Amino acid sequence: MIGIVGGVGPYAGTDLLNKIFNNTLASKDQEHLDAILLSMSSKIEDRTEYLLGKVKINPALAIVEVLHKLELIGSTIAGIPCNTAHSKKIFDTIQLELEKSKSRIKLLNMIDETVLFIASNYPDITKIGVLSTTGTYKSKLYASALRLKGYEAIVPPLEMQENTIHPAIYDKVYGIKTISNPIHPQARQNLLEGCSYLEEQGAELVILGCTEIPLAITESKINNMITVDPTNILARALIKYIDPLKLKPL
Amino acid sequence: MIGIVGGVGPYAGTDLLNKIFNNTLASKDQEHLDAILLSMSSKIEDRTEYLLGKVKINPALAIVEVLHKLELIGSTIAGIPCNTAHSKKIFDTIQLELEKSKSRIKLLNMIDETVLFIASNYPDITKIGVLSTTGTYKSKLYASALRLKGYEAIVPPLEMQENTIHPAIYDKVYGIKTISNPIHPQARQNLLEGCSYLEEQGAELVILGCTEIPLAITESKINNMITVDPTNILARALIKYIDPLKLKPL
Repeated sequence: MIGIVGGVGPYAGTDLLNKIFNNTLASKDQEHLDAILLSMSSKIEDRTEYLLGKVKINPALAIVEVLHKLELIGSTIAGIPCNTAHSKKIFDTIQLELEKSKSRIKLLNMIDETVLFIASNYPDITKIGVLSTTGTYKSKLYASALRLKGYEAIVPPLEMQENTIHPAIYDKVYGIKTISNPIHPQARQNLLEGCSYLEEQGAELVILGCTEIPLAITESKINNMITVDPTNILARALIKYIDPLKLKPL
Repeated sequence: MIGIVGGVGPYAGTDLLNKIFNNTLASKDQEHLDAILLSMSSKIEDRTEYLLGKVKINPALAIVEVLHKLELIGSTIAGIPCNTAHSKKIFDTIQLELEKSKSRIKLLNMIDETVLFIASNYPDITKIGVLSTTGTYKSKLYASALRLKGYEAIVPPLEMQENTIHPAIYDKVYGIKTISNPIHPQARQNLLEGCSYLEEQGAELVILGCTEIPLAITESKINNMITVDPTNILARALIKYIDPLKLKPL
């Protein structure tokens, strides 16, 4: 059974589960894959605040508790629909704690799955832009993974990151975490500004590297730049692991 | 912790969880309520097919197993975002089995919550239309609950129910259970035809009495008829039970 560490953020959890359903070959309820979503938002510290030193407790510890509960109920594989939780300081601790507790659940890495997906589906692309929270930005999460595979990674300048991109997600008035049904036009506007900058710098593809961003940018292309949604890629990887015959062709 | 019996259908589960988030007063992840969604579509027989005698096993038994799992993980209250599962033959069995197993989880009844909601929010309304699957239609689920409280319940004639309303949900080509992202225009068209009929018969309010229907009818009014979404009402009732101070005002 597929397990989802939800609550990071809440809507990212249901978004991943919906994307699992969307990518499954099924024409009735009974043909869908079984899944469990544990949305424990109150227990998991903010990932970005931890990386920026504003919070001392590593959110990895609460995430590991969620993974243990998922395993107890029958999950054999799990995903975390939160990019920032994949930063080294958090993700390495999760994996270490899982090993220490002799957990047998297989935890997919959304960042690695995304780079693999781009390599196999867009073999000619070399310049990749990334939009993300400031936590992911400073930990160079996607940038490092991309450069390791020989890609040129393009990110916004720090000023644009802090005053335009991050607020699209976290602003108390218009940020996606505050209001997402519907999305506030200002959040989308900020993200489109980011896209324009990345394309001007030569990006051929942009990774929507925070699970909230695809709620505001739903197009498969912005101008001439391909958009890639890591949550959708994680959904497909989870299905493929459980039952490859159920994976809907792209 | 709030528990959700998911998988009936899959998208109705994530829809209920999103509606819990939408109705919660929260400006950051940590202020949201904890919840668990168990989507066990492969284990739960189709509710309508059971009511129509096409399937022998009562889906109540699998639903009770899900409720036990939810309780094991820490749910104290639960909801089932499936109208048909609230028919007497299924819901009574669920409650009986929960009692027999000495379960302490509190299971809300979405139908009762909906009638209560209408009575307290629209005290002047007397004529109420209902759109649903043929299973719910034949079991007179909403019609009985409404008549018991003195309302006039209006439903489509059998021919329209079987050839227009039910296919909007179950048709293999355009039904919402087959394709919901985006909704097929034919599914919406069929449901709007149903709405027009109900309004012609004098309905002042229509209950969108199958959890898939609000995915196609998202307006709060169709012509002059108020639309009411039982999933949204169930979401609000679950929040109110866990923490009334977190419930967003209407």
